[in-house]
Amino acid sequence: MLKPYDDNYFMKRALQEAEQAYVKGEIPIGAVIVSNDQIIARAHNLTETLNDVTAHAEMQAITAAANYLGGKYLTKCTLYVTIEPCQMCAGALYWSQISKIVYGARDEQRGCISLNTKLHPKTTMTGGILENEAAHLLKKFFIEKRNLN
Amino acid sequence: MLKPYDDNYFMKRALQEAEQAYVKGEIPIGAVIVSNDQIIARAHNLTETLNDVTAHAEMQAITAAANYLGGKYLTKCTLYVTIEPCQMCAGALYWSQISKIVYGARDEQRGCISLNTKLHPKTTMTGGILENEAAHLLKKFFIEKRNLN
Repeated sequence: MLKPYDDNYFMKRALQEAEQAYVKGEIPIGAVIVSNDQIIARAHNLTETLNDVTAHAEMQAITAAANYLGGKYLTKCTLYVTIEPCQMCAGALYWSQISKIVYGARDEQRGCISLNTKLHPKTTMTGGILENEAAHLLKKFFIEKRNLN
Repeated sequence: MLKPYDDNYFMKRALQEAEQAYVKGEIPIGAVIVSNDQIIARAHNLTETLNDVTAHAEMQAITAAANYLGGKYLTKCTLYVTIEPCQMCAGALYWSQISKIVYGARDEQRGCISLNTKLHPKTTMTGGILENEAAHLLKKFFIEKRNLN
C-alpha cells in the first residue's frame, strides 16, 4: 500500500528548508519536526542572519515544536534533518527526549556519531534518507563560497 | 598585588544569576561571559519559564554575548558557569570558539567531561571555582522539589 507520509515525504520538506537557507547565503541545512504525520515545526540554519552560532536548524525546530505543543518534551515526535546533527543539536535532542531522529547525509567530521554524543535512551536514530540531495546542496554551497573568496 | 577581577569575582556574578533562577523555580544554574574584565552577558537557566529545553544559562549567554559583540565568535571571551556545561552547551561553546570556560561544580552524570564532548582546539577549560556554593544551591533546589512532590 502506498503511504503518502513516509520518511522521503518529510525529508523533502526538510530539504525545502535547506534550500531556503541556501538562498540566504546560510549553510544549507533544514529540519522539520513531525507529530502524528503532521509537521509541527520547520526551520533552517540562520547562524549568519541571526549572528548566533546556536541558530542551527534543529535548535530552532526544537524550540518551535515545544512552543506548538505547549510542553518542552518531544517524546512522540520525529525530527527530520538534512545533515546529521552536531554535538550541540544532539545534546539538545537528548534533553527533548525526542522519539526519533532521521537525518539525510552523514557529517563524518563534526556529526554526533563520530563524536559519540549521547542520545536519550528513548531516542532512535536512522539516516541516509535523500542523502545525495542533502550532500549535493551542501557541496554546491561550499564550492560557490570558495570561488567567491 | 590584589586583583579585583579574578575568577572568584566573576563566578560570584554567575552565582547571583543561579540564585535568580532558584527564585523562579528553575534549576539554579547561572552564567556570565567576560571580555576584557567586563561582563558582556549574564543569564540563568529558563527552561521552565520559556518551555524550552535549549534555554540553558550558557546558551542564552552565548547568544547575548554575540549580540553585544556584533559577531558570532567569542574568541577573546571567558564563560563562567556555576555547573559544568552539558553536551549541548559544550557543543555550542565549540562553535563559538570561546577562549576559556570556567565552571563551578562538576556534573559527573550529564556534564561534558564524562560524556567526552569535544571542545574547540582554541578553548581551555578549568573548574572548581566556588564549587561548594554552586553545588549547595543545586542540592537545595532538588531536595525542596522532592519534598514538594
